[in-house]
Amino acid sequence: MPPLQLPPNLKFGPFSVASQVFHISPSRLSFGLVNLKPLLPGHILVCPVRSVPRLSQLSGTETADLFNTVRAVSSTLQRVYHASSFNVAVQDGVNAGQSVPHVHVHVIPRQKGDYDDKGGGDRIYDAMDGEEGNVGKAFLEMQRIREERVNGDRRFVAAPDSDRKARSEEEMKKEAEWLRMEIEKDRRDAEDHS
Amino acid sequence: MPPLQLPPNLKFGPFSVASQVFHISPSRLSFGLVNLKPLLPGHILVCPVRSVPRLSQLSGTETADLFNTVRAVSSTLQRVYHASSFNVAVQDGVNAGQSVPHVHVHVIPRQKGDYDDKGGGDRIYDAMDGEEGNVGKAFLEMQRIREERVNGDRRFVAAPDSDRKARSEEEMKKEAEWLRMEIEKDRRDAEDHS
Repeated sequence: MPPLQLPPNLKFGPFSVASQVFHISPSRLSFGLVNLKPLLPGHILVCPVRSVPRLSQLSGTETADLFNTVRAVSSTLQRVYHASSFNVAVQDGVNAGQSVPHVHVHVIPRQKGDYDDKGGGDRIYDAMDGEEGNVGKAFLEMQRIREERVNGDRRFVAAPDSDRKARSEEEMKKEAEWLRMEIEKDRRDAEDHS
Repeated sequence: MPPLQLPPNLKFGPFSVASQVFHISPSRLSFGLVNLKPLLPGHILVCPVRSVPRLSQLSGTETADLFNTVRAVSSTLQRVYHASSFNVAVQDGVNAGQSVPHVHVHVIPRQKGDYDDKGGGDRIYDAMDGEEGNVGKAFLEMQRIREERVNGDRRFVAAPDSDRKARSEEEMKKEAEWLRMEIEKDRRDAEDHS
């Protein structure tokens, strides 16, 4: 497939995330990106293209597009990650656990018993709000690693902050391309049946 | 204020909730109801009027209205509950913790340190998905108490399932009427300034 045509200067908060983006909504108001440290396979983020911290700062049209994009990508996530349910959550503001000041909807595919080894299904949110789900910190680490690479500076090695290792950019890019292809497949199937 | 004009046979899953409803969206596709067992003051639910279990079963228009209703009521919740943030969450399916088979968006006003005495801010989701946040069980209890009242049957006394007592219908009705008035006030103020 040809590269995804992204809006100019698309960022997630202060972070460059082009290689992680797997979807742009038809209206180009919302995008989906794969996660640096997914809490479960297929844990992705859906964001408005316009970077604002709070839901209240979105227009009605942007809000509508954001959550319809959640719905649109979920049907493909459900198929490819064999999900029976989803947790859909927004930390709307710092005191709700938000770590990147750019609205993002967590979409986490769920299966029966998928979190049993970590204390049961209800712990997923705990993880999301805790250290291991700290989206901002994970992105900061990635940025530091990138800058070190650019500067040829290898003195500082990012220490892992939990058992889950941040994934490589190559790995995320592969997942993003794969998801994009699967969404395109579903879109064509839907067209054929309409 | 005159009583809220509700859509005929409005229910939340199998439950009659008329006295808890504080808001109907202008398009009459979504409604807000106060919670039987709020995890924090102002914890409310926003639902589509059409009773379906999953987000994927809503139309694009219903989805847009649902989340724009979340945004609309949040601005009043922010003011009257002195909230600085919100947790916004949907348990989309049984394996994501859904206990009532009718789409509902949890909206939980947050303040700095509001959950410190319960183990910290990140435990709110844990509570939501655990026994104390079991919306379905709480509504079943309320229904049983109602039926006992109708039948004059007092043999069965509902045992509390946690420290948080389910609130009385009178208490919820009062909160619903108060919230409705405050939302109306904000609506008129916005009109005056436009």
